Amino acid sequence: MEKYELVIIGGSAGGIQSAICAQKHHGLNDILVIRMEEKVVVPCGIPYIYGTLGSVEKNIMPDKLIGAAKLKIAEATSIDRQNKTVKLSDGQEVGYNKLILATGSTPLQPPIPGLDKKNVWFAWKNPDYLGELAKAIDGKGDIVVIGGGFIGVEFADECRKRGHKVTIVEMLEHCLQLVCTKDLCVRAEEALKKNGVEVITNNGVKAIEGTDKAESVLLQSGKRIKCSMVLVGIGVAPNIKLARDAGLEVGSTGGIKVDEFQRTVDPDIFAVGDCAEKYSFFNGLPVPVRLASVATREGKIAAANIFQPQWRNIGTIGAFSTVVADTAIAMAGLTDSKAQEIGYETVIGEAEAASKHPGTLPDAHPMRVRLTFDRRSGKIIGGCACCTQTVGEVVNIIASAIVNEMTMEQIAMFPMGTHPWLTASPLAYQITDAASNALHKSINTVKS
Amino acid sequence: MEKYELVIIGGSAGGIQSAICAQKHHGLNDILVIRMEEKVVVPCGIPYIYGTLGSVEKNIMPDKLIGAAKLKIAEATSIDRQNKTVKLSDGQEVGYNKLILATGSTPLQPPIPGLDKKNVWFAWKNPDYLGELAKAIDGKGDIVVIGGGFIGVEFADECRKRGHKVTIVEMLEHCLQLVCTKDLCVRAEEALKKNGVEVITNNGVKAIEGTDKAESVLLQSGKRIKCSMVLVGIGVAPNIKLARDAGLEVGSTGGIKVDEFQRTVDPDIFAVGDCAEKYSFFNGLPVPVRLASVATREGKIAAANIFQPQWRNIGTIGAFSTVVADTAIAMAGLTDSKAQEIGYETVIGEAEAASKHPGTLPDAHPMRVRLTFDRRSGKIIGGCACCTQTVGEVVNIIASAIVNEMTMEQIAMFPMGTHPWLTASPLAYQITDAASNALHKSINTVKS
Repeated sequence: MEKYELVIIGGSAGGIQSAICAQKHHGLNDILVIRMEEKVVVPCGIPYIYGTLGSVEKNIMPDKLIGAAKLKIAEATSIDRQNKTVKLSDGQEVGYNKLILATGSTPLQPPIPGLDKKNVWFAWKNPDYLGELAKAIDGKGDIVVIGGGFIGVEFADECRKRGHKVTIVEMLEHCLQLVCTKDLCVRAEEALKKNGVEVITNNGVKAIEGTDKAESVLLQSGKRIKCSMVLVGIGVAPNIKLARDAGLEVGSTGGIKVDEFQRTVDPDIFAVGDCAEKYSFFNGLPVPVRLASVATREGKIAAANIFQPQWRNIGTIGAFSTVVADTAIAMAGLTDSKAQEIGYETVIGEAEAASKHPGTLPDAHPMRVRLTFDRRSGKIIGGCACCTQTVGEVVNIIASAIVNEMTMEQIAMFPMGTHPWLTASPLAYQITDAASNALHKSINTVKS
Repeated sequence: MEKYELVIIGGSAGGIQSAICAQKHHGLNDILVIRMEEKVVVPCGIPYIYGTLGSVEKNIMPDKLIGAAKLKIAEATSIDRQNKTVKLSDGQEVGYNKLILATGSTPLQPPIPGLDKKNVWFAWKNPDYLGELAKAIDGKGDIVVIGGGFIGVEFADECRKRGHKVTIVEMLEHCLQLVCTKDLCVRAEEALKKNGVEVITNNGVKAIEGTDKAESVLLQSGKRIKCSMVLVGIGVAPNIKLARDAGLEVGSTGGIKVDEFQRTVDPDIFAVGDCAEKYSFFNGLPVPVRLASVATREGKIAAANIFQPQWRNIGTIGAFSTVVADTAIAMAGLTDSKAQEIGYETVIGEAEAASKHPGTLPDAHPMRVRLTFDRRSGKIIGGCACCTQTVGEVVNIIASAIVNEMTMEQIAMFPMGTHPWLTASPLAYQITDAASNALHKSINTVKS
């Protein structure tokens, strides 16, 4: 039986990062990565296969990323924790000293009648399946997207770029509502509508209708939308069967329970990425934030900790961004409703200014920042930015402020750099001005 | 005699920000801003008047920025600290309770023979003068730029966009050497050269020659460059005459001495912006970092502190960025040579990845980050980024890491957000990867 110092099950973001960092951090080469797929897709790139990229091949992660680690294409079917072995679908068994589970997640299948009809598709991270989907989208016809989260919104935007008539159906009041402050949700919806996407919110799907193939979607409201294809993007479920069968504990959001060092209840087994439970930076409670950026961070932490705890996971703040047509939106930390749920009394500061200065420079566009602070401590707990191409990094400045627990005073005086071509004016820099506005608001209003 | 609660002398970035924040922070409206110019130019926008913007009018700061503050166009000629009054060029005298000096700086005039010839120009922040310069640049002819700092490089790039043949002459080994790590200097020089600008370094100017007008520039090396115009951008000298005449102390880099609350030796007089001495975030020693972004920060701090010290200036880290043709470069904190000067033993981490992911997306370009850490504490002390349009904000993430004294471990595990259109892949995010590389370098090399 082959035996490895480290076995990693799963070859997407979390698994790859674990393999990279175990090599970098410990100089460890005796690593086996087990994955089911011949090729691995860039997870966040999936929607872009269907518009901008044009093919699955342009969205494949190179295998060279895992460096000196050995690769095995197979399904891990069981873990024997006593003997520290993993059984594979081809009958082989491999031994491990340390094991990292990075088994990912699977698209949720809601209990909607007709979900099993032909031409109902999911964002399943399998290149062959995604290739079939590409062929289906190549055809003509209207598309209904069920679910207005990131995947749904991005799929809709890419498909309308291809010329399809697209309708998004979202149960909640707004698209992206679970992860973004309302302001951002509205901007994303407006950008979709402006580009011809129909957005139906506050409405669930009753059934997918058709004889053999999906032909229409019947909504709770009674409205019926004709279509030739349905895309379902309502979230993911962690792949935990392997872990649960091995007796590892599972948390309340459905991920494998891990401690602050990414250890499961078995000290030789770690879990990272979508399959692992995540805990809030703000209150330590489980949060269902399943993103590649979170997975890679957990992969680094687990890899550093395999021999002894070294790196602590300070918790998940949630930092997201996306682009709809030309409207980029980005969010870090708590939304207003989450902040209230947790019990914060919040103070909001907002600022908008041209993205370049003077605003007469070509391609200067309004860029808006909104920061949320805890009134009592003055510390930042969330923030968002829109609508220029820099907001992906702007929100990382906000993320840095959050993890460093900066106060509104500290952010108001933050020594940012500015440049006419690259940022707002130093007199109107949005992050510092938003903090300043929050500060003056809290000075000038007595707590009720 | 009119008397004001707050008088601000100077109406550029530092003065305007002081006026804004005194109103916001204290609800104070009894403010007079005294400035010499009818109109104020956006200081960092000056070079862009001559290429991209096309006119001085497009680079004017709106007076409405100062809000309810009163504006007086005049020169302040003396300060009577005993009686707390300021004498103006029109003979008027105004009283103050608190005074903020934001008198700015003037372009340095090096002792070069021929500097007084016609068609030798400076980046003097006066709209009329800059308008005359615009007319001069409208003509044909070759241009020599003396000084390869930010102003020189930006002027050169804009003038070549207008079709001029431009030569930069820099005394030091590289353009931008005093503020940027060598890597960035070289990239800026390459971008200039690629676009037809001649870059001569390691060479001083001996004389500007010509009968009446500048006709050629003679270098120390003996080389002679024909030209029809000379632009001089070798730095600025703080405008401190008014302060010095009033008995206020001046520091070693020529600025008005201030404490951590922006107070001069007179507790009723504050100084901000180019006229004020700056102190390093790293060791507290004076540093000549004269930027609008620094000025606005000091304006906020002074305005908050006029009645009693509230906000502390944590010191200047220096955060810069610029764009040459399509090459954007940005730097925060210490360059390698400055870090060595101060006595740090440094560890460098570098990472490069496509600016979008997968790298097959349109307009994905390599983006590189280089971080400098203090080996002993593991804390970040500097960093730079090039060459995409996001680097202006990327360097502000680095600036945030510096002021929060983040270690390489903390940055390696930083919970960044990523998105295909807006950032590198989470598997290759440059800031976290550069920190990770520095960490592994320091783990794997024993200190000599």
